[in-house]
Formats: sequence, structure tokens, C-alpha cells
Amino acid sequence: MPNLADSLSLIQRGAEEILIEAELIKKLETGKPLRIKAGFDPTAPDLHLGHTVLLNKLRQFQDLGHHVMFLIGDFTGMIGDPTGKNVTRKPLTREQVAENAKSYQTQIGQILDLDKTEICFNSTWMDKLSSADLIQLAATHTVARMLERDDFNKRYQTNQPIAIHEFLYPLVQGYDSVAMKADVELGGTDQKFNLLMGRELQKHFGQAPQIILTMPLLEGTDGVNKMSKSLGNSIGIADIPDEMFGKLMSISDDLMWRYLTLLSFRPMSEIEAWQAEVEAGANPRDYKIKLAEEIITRFHSASAAKRAYESFVTRFQKGGIPDDIKTLNIATEAGNIGIANLLKAAGLCNSTSEAIRMIKQNAVRIDGEKVADSRQMLNAGSEHVYQVGKRKFAKIVLS
Amino acid sequence: MPNLADSLSLIQRGAEEILIEAELIKKLETGKPLRIKAGFDPTAPDLHLGHTVLLNKLRQFQDLGHHVMFLIGDFTGMIGDPTGKNVTRKPLTREQVAENAKSYQTQIGQILDLDKTEICFNSTWMDKLSSADLIQLAATHTVARMLERDDFNKRYQTNQPIAIHEFLYPLVQGYDSVAMKADVELGGTDQKFNLLMGRELQKHFGQAPQIILTMPLLEGTDGVNKMSKSLGNSIGIADIPDEMFGKLMSISDDLMWRYLTLLSFRPMSEIEAWQAEVEAGANPRDYKIKLAEEIITRFHSASAAKRAYESFVTRFQKGGIPDDIKTLNIATEAGNIGIANLLKAAGLCNSTSEAIRMIKQNAVRIDGEKVADSRQMLNAGSEHVYQVGKRKFAKIVLS
Repeated sequence: MPNLADSLSLIQRGAEEILIEAELIKKLETGKPLRIKAGFDPTAPDLHLGHTVLLNKLRQFQDLGHHVMFLIGDFTGMIGDPTGKNVTRKPLTREQVAENAKSYQTQIGQILDLDKTEICFNSTWMDKLSSADLIQLAATHTVARMLERDDFNKRYQTNQPIAIHEFLYPLVQGYDSVAMKADVELGGTDQKFNLLMGRELQKHFGQAPQIILTMPLLEGTDGVNKMSKSLGNSIGIADIPDEMFGKLMSISDDLMWRYLTLLSFRPMSEIEAWQAEVEAGANPRDYKIKLAEEIITRFHSASAAKRAYESFVTRFQKGGIPDDIKTLNIATEAGNIGIANLLKAAGLCNSTSEAIRMIKQNAVRIDGEKVADSRQMLNAGSEHVYQVGKRKFAKIVLS
Repeated sequence: MPNLADSLSLIQRGAEEILIEAELIKKLETGKPLRIKAGFDPTAPDLHLGHTVLLNKLRQFQDLGHHVMFLIGDFTGMIGDPTGKNVTRKPLTREQVAENAKSYQTQIGQILDLDKTEICFNSTWMDKLSSADLIQLAATHTVARMLERDDFNKRYQTNQPIAIHEFLYPLVQGYDSVAMKADVELGGTDQKFNLLMGRELQKHFGQAPQIILTMPLLEGTDGVNKMSKSLGNSIGIADIPDEMFGKLMSISDDLMWRYLTLLSFRPMSEIEAWQAEVEAGANPRDYKIKLAEEIITRFHSASAAKRAYESFVTRFQKGGIPDDIKTLNIATEAGNIGIANLLKAAGLCNSTSEAIRMIKQNAVRIDGEKVADSRQMLNAGSEHVYQVGKRKFAKIVLS
């Protein structure tokens, strides 16, 4: 095991908040492996890099010799949304939970050492909890305390309904920490209230309160919003290598440092050295490539990373055309069509005005040649490769 | 069974609210015995006439041929007050519940036909309810709905803590109606919110909603406050006949009609005839005697009622002295003592000024003789019966 200062600095890396750090240091000083808890949704996982921020922190704890407990919150998942308002959240069956757990293992196995990871299901202890026990649990907190939680507060203030069972779920999550005897619980910053419940309930049950460690919610490739599949700014861990490479190369130079801190396994000292190099004039692009290579190696392989890099260089740096572009057949009504209308029809631009703007910015090519005239006409029977910006390609056969 | 109009009129007698009466009529029209629920606290019962208002209504339903279910809420009683704030409300053991249930049976057997009364314990179904089931139950109602309950609302507005489990108890009570398939639930006016929960949960579980019938909270002998042992205005059903008689004779003429409506088993037609007689000049006292005799007959015997009546006539109407008065030995310091000081020392008056006032009102007697002089001195060695007002007596031996 590394020394205390190194351990602490790895644990602190990228963390938003550690509560209470002095307690953590005390626990680390004992030299005993700590019990590290993180809870996950029991629905079918489809992880993106945002999710891996927490997993990476678990991995770091694992590397430091601590005992990682990966908790699947199946108890509440099997209840579903009892208000029936959320039709997409149907109660999961025990079989679905088992299936999803398998899928989790496959996915998290790319980050964690599964041999050293304890997969827990909170139904194990919650199924044994009687309604009387749950009432006792509910007695430990007040309505006012629960309404302090940001989202509850907002909903209450704006007269949006809060079903009573929603007050019970944070208590269930807190009780999980009791049942698991957690020393540390990790979660996103949005989970702070629930993580604190664990502390409070552990004290109530005579246990030493867990330390809570919150990790920031990673921004998506747009650098603005939280990474989310539905916002279209996410990088899935199952994305194909070329897609991963392209998306990672598209992030801003600022965001790159955040991604390196939260996603890379390279020591911070190395990343800080790179920062110094960039400040001294080095091209940030070269470090973005290193990040992309590391991530693709993790989720695919080193050779896949190499191929993705080469394909990227061909496409964007040498201005070449990739091999695997789609072919479209488009019919012209008049026997010919203007370039702007064609780009829109092919889905390469969202509108003709966008197409005209891109042409003016010299960002449109036909067979590698820049288009200078936004009124250029293309004739039926022609077959060209069209390119818009750096990454949009299509072979179009006009008829 | 009597006809519908008579049934309905008996059910309506003294009731504060019947919700929804049209539904009740429909159920009565079926001619089937209805399932009548009333819930009671599982703590050791020490019933007073205020409690019997509800029991009398149950008895009326029983007389009409309906099935009475006397519910002892032992499930929550065995949880106690989990916040630990109320030290007097310790969790009951199963043995204590059984003991209290026995005591209930003895006491309610004086009103209900026990052979036709089903004694229920909600632990029967609540012990089987899992924490998941309770969460589902909690999902049926919102926090805002629960905060509509008067007492919760007041506490929330004044920042007094409400523990979350307190939101679960009305749901448990409502679920009792589901488990018992209640057609009608009776309760005090203060229970309306909880009774409505039963309606709502029965609908949720696909049952016809119960009709709720609320009974007023009976005023104590002071005619002002709700009858309560701790307020000293109650008439216990175990009070000795003389005490019952005296307390019932002490109520106001107005309150007498309310007591007759809520406590007497005489038909309303008879009570209404009495009202007409009093309006025509009859002495209300004579009807108060009839009430006292009926109540004492119910909880003791007809002969006890007769003796209590005779003892009352002796004491108060003929100015006689009862046989069973207490004897006090009081030492004078100076060899004698003023009457006002003595009455205070003997506890017959709260203060010397009250004693002087009572003497001026001709309300103090020594051995049956009115005391005219509030400065009268009594000598050591004397032994007299002192009387203050109609009901306070003491034999005092001065030394």
C-alpha cells in the first residue's frame, strides 16, 4: 500500500467534496481496508464516460487495497414507480435484475477488478425488513428535514406532488449503508443529501458514520451540459473506436484537462507536466490524442486505438476521405439541383442557410475540392463524395 | 330488522356527519348486514362516558343486525413512539396487548353484545405487510395531502417537528379498512381525515369505499371541555354509583339533552316528549334523575341505581349527611381556629377567601346547621361534620 499522503491525494483527485476528511484520514491511518460503497440504478445499464467518473474513483480505492462494494438498488427497482405516473419505470422482475446485473459486470469489468469487487443487492436486507422496521426507520427523520432536499423543496414550493414513498427512498438508501457497514460512500454531487442519510442512520444504529465523497457530474462533449445520452453529448463506453476518437477530439481544450483528471488513469503529476508543456506552446491536440488512445484502449484495445488514430489522421489531418462513408441516392426533380438544397436533402446540413454559411466558410468539399460558389448546380447522373465540416461525409448518386 | 327509515334515523341520531349518506342508504337497501368498523387505542382502557358515545353507536348498529368489528390498533401500539420523545408511550408487548384486550372486553361488554362483536387486531394483517408493501401504500398519497390534516398543518406552520412515520400511521389505519372490508367506519370528529384515508385506500384496492360516520366529542360535566380524565370533568364507567349519580346531577340542563341523545338508549321520541314537558314547566331535575338511573343501571345494576338515588335524595334534597364521609384530625396551634382557616386546612375550600364567600352564600354547614358568621371560632376537642356546597363533606376532630 502507498503511504497516507499518496493515498489521500489519489482519493482527492477530481473529488468535489469529502465529508469529513479528518475522519477519512483517521480511518486510512488504521491501515485496514475500508469498505467502499457506491449505489447504482438496477435498470439495464448503458454506461457512458460520465458514469465512469464514479467507477474510476472506485478503481482508485481498489488500487489502494480497499474493499469495493458495488450496490445494485434492486429493492426499489422491483417496486418501480408505484404512483403509476411514470409508465416507463415499470417494476423490474427478479430475472430482469439478474440480467441487468450481468450486463453491469461486463461493463464495469473494463474498469474494476471484478475479482475484488463485491456486487451487492439491497433486496438482500430490504426484503427482510418488516413494515414495522420501516416505520421505525421513518421515525428517525422529520418531514421538514426531508423537505430540505433541493428537489423536494422546489417541488413543494411549486405545488408539484411529492408522493410519500419518495420520502422513504432516501431512508432506504441510508439504511443500505448500515446493512453494508460502509466506511465510505461515493456518489455524484446530486446525491449528497442521500449520502448524508447514510451517515445519520449509521449513527442512529450505533455505527461509526461513513465518510461521503462526492464526484462532479461530467460535462458532455458540448462542455456545457451534464453528459447525457438524451442530450446527444455523450460518449458511450460501447461506442465504436472511430466514434469515440472523433468525439474526444471534438472537446474544447479546457474540457480536455477536466476529462484527463476525471477519466485518465495517468498520474496527476504527468497531466500537470502536460499542462506546463501546453502553456509553453505545445499543441493541445497532441494530448487530446493521448486521452482518446487511453480511453479506446480501455474499452476496446490498444490496436483498436491505433487504428482509430490512423483513420482520424487520414480523415481530418491529411484531408483524406474515409473508406466507410455512406452512399445516398437522391432524385432531382428538374434534372439538376443546387448545392445548398442537396446538402440539406442529404442531411449533411440542417438547412439551406446553414449550407450557404458553411460554403462561405470554405467548409464544403466535393471530392476533396472546396466549393466556392453556393449557387453551384449538380446534375442528375453525377456521383461525388460531399464533405461538410471535418466529420460529415456522404457519397451521393444523383438521378 | 326495522324498516329503512327507522334504521337510518337511529344511525343518524347524534351523528355529526355521515359521508356519503346516499351510499349508506344504498347499502342499507340491500338488506345485507353491513361490516361496521371502529378503531381503538391498544393501551390499557379506562373508559369514561365520552368513550361510550362511539360504543353506543356500535350497539345501535348491532341492534339493527349489522356486524360490528371492534378493532384494537395493536400494530402501531407495539411500535410505540419510535422518536423516543414520548417516554410515556413505550412499545407494548404482545402480552400487554392481550391483557388490555381482555380489559376492553369486560368494559365494552356492558354496552355491546360480545357474542356478536368481532374483536380484531390490526397486527394480524400488518405483521404480514412487507416494507415493499408499505412503500406501495405510501405511494398512494402525497406529502401535500397529508399536510392538509389539521394537526399536521399547524405543526408544520409553527415549525414543530413531524416525524415521517407519522405520515404512515393514517395510511395504516386506512389499510385496516381494506383488510377488514369495512362498509362503515365510525370515529370521533377528530378522526375524519383518517377515516377518509380508509375510503381512498379502499378505492385504490378496488373495493367500494366505506361510509364514514363521525360522532361528536362529548363535553365533560363542566359542559365546556371535551370529557377527559385529566381535566377532571369525566364520569368513568367504573365510577361508584353515588359518584356517577352526583356527577350526572351536576350537569347543566342544556347539557342534559345532549347526554340523553348520545348516552341514553331510550328512543328519541321519548326524549323529545320530555323536552316538551320541560318546556311546559316540568323540572329538568326529574329527567336528569332518569338519565342517572339509566347509566348506573347499565354499568352497575338497577338496585345500585335505586340506592344511589336514595342516597342522593338524603344528602342533597333533604339536606342530610351521607354515611361514608371522611374523618380528618386537625391540630390547632392556639387551642382554637377560625372557621375559614379550618375549611381551608381541611381542603374543603381552596382559600380562606373562598371559605368566607361560601359562608356568605349560606353554603357552609356544621352538623347540618348553616354557618352565619365567617369569623366563628372552633375549639380543640370538638368533633363536627362540616359541609361546603352540596357535595363536600368532612368530619373534623380538632386537637
